[in-house]
Amino acid sequence: MHKVVEVELGADILAANMRIADANREHLRGHKVLSFDFLGSIGSGKTLIIEHLIESLKGKGKRVGCIAGDVAGDDDYRRFVRHGVVAENLNTGKECHLDAHMVDHALEHLPLNEIDVLFIENVGNLVCPGDFPLGADKRIVVISVTEGDDMVRKHPLIFTVADAIVINKVDLAGAVDVDPQILVNDAKRLNARAPILLTDAKHGKGMAELEKALGF
Amino acid sequence: MHKVVEVELGADILAANMRIADANREHLRGHKVLSFDFLGSIGSGKTLIIEHLIESLKGKGKRVGCIAGDVAGDDDYRRFVRHGVVAENLNTGKECHLDAHMVDHALEHLPLNEIDVLFIENVGNLVCPGDFPLGADKRIVVISVTEGDDMVRKHPLIFTVADAIVINKVDLAGAVDVDPQILVNDAKRLNARAPILLTDAKHGKGMAELEKALGF
Repeated sequence: MHKVVEVELGADILAANMRIADANREHLRGHKVLSFDFLGSIGSGKTLIIEHLIESLKGKGKRVGCIAGDVAGDDDYRRFVRHGVVAENLNTGKECHLDAHMVDHALEHLPLNEIDVLFIENVGNLVCPGDFPLGADKRIVVISVTEGDDMVRKHPLIFTVADAIVINKVDLAGAVDVDPQILVNDAKRLNARAPILLTDAKHGKGMAELEKALGF
Repeated sequence: MHKVVEVELGADILAANMRIADANREHLRGHKVLSFDFLGSIGSGKTLIIEHLIESLKGKGKRVGCIAGDVAGDDDYRRFVRHGVVAENLNTGKECHLDAHMVDHALEHLPLNEIDVLFIENVGNLVCPGDFPLGADKRIVVISVTEGDDMVRKHPLIFTVADAIVINKVDLAGAVDVDPQILVNDAKRLNARAPILLTDAKHGKGMAELEKALGF
């Protein structure tokens, strides 16, 4: 009994999320804002990668905005505003993913006419965020070699919806005995369309290639 | 409208899960099986830590069983059976956590009269598994220093329900510029009761202390 109700409601929730995501997309495009949803595992380096992109885009005269999504706290939000960009903090409380409705509210508080590029950092999780599009133009999935060489094949869905896949912390591959090529091969098998980037955000490696892959 | 239905159903699901978890606990205790639920982030080292515990307990004449929980695949399951223990593989498909009902089914397939200690490895996720007790005697939360020094305060709930907290991969703390003491302090603030262990499972460090903390 519970199961049936759950499934039906689940479909309702996903459909409602999709409608709001579509509205977010129209809203952002109406304001000529290019938007990117960064999904990926906990501590994979999403925030640092976005910080690199912020600095580089600022250098090119682009005005950046950010939405930081986390279960609790404002660590990532504070890191973004330190770069002088406008940002909103979204705490999900008990949810393991952002949804389009939360982003809709965050957009109300952002000066979209003064933003060229919006980065949304999703909650660290390789499962549920894949099911909840937010309305961003592109979805970037970030993982780290420190999580092991089985991370892609253990979480297939999220890689199939990615527009770009980032394998970060490759400088630590030796220390954790992980061959990044295994992750690359698994990702290619799931998604032949998305560019796959090997990065070491801590030392700025691969950031220019990622920027290019995102269309800048 | 959706929201209201969702909240009510959520409470139903959590209550139903709790009932089944209680039944699992009784069932396991009836068979004199000591059980441990390992929760924690993706790639934090849960599997390797359990592998160390299996080998050590085998040396002490204990009979071990395992349940491997993952969204997809049987990587962890295969690692467990390689140690000669009985194991069950649970694929959640789209769910980001195990629930008591799934574990109930796995228990049907395990020879509980021939098991002294059961290790359950939950899906890698620092949010939802905290809400779904499985009926294990103790819940161990594992994180890795490679995820950054803000991991505990970003995911407070799961640390409050832990009976032991493991901070793994401390050998990489320098390489990722993370002070493990920050994680320890944040964890202590959330949970004064649970022992906190600093480990380097790859090199076997801290495993004896963890075993002791689990009561062996």
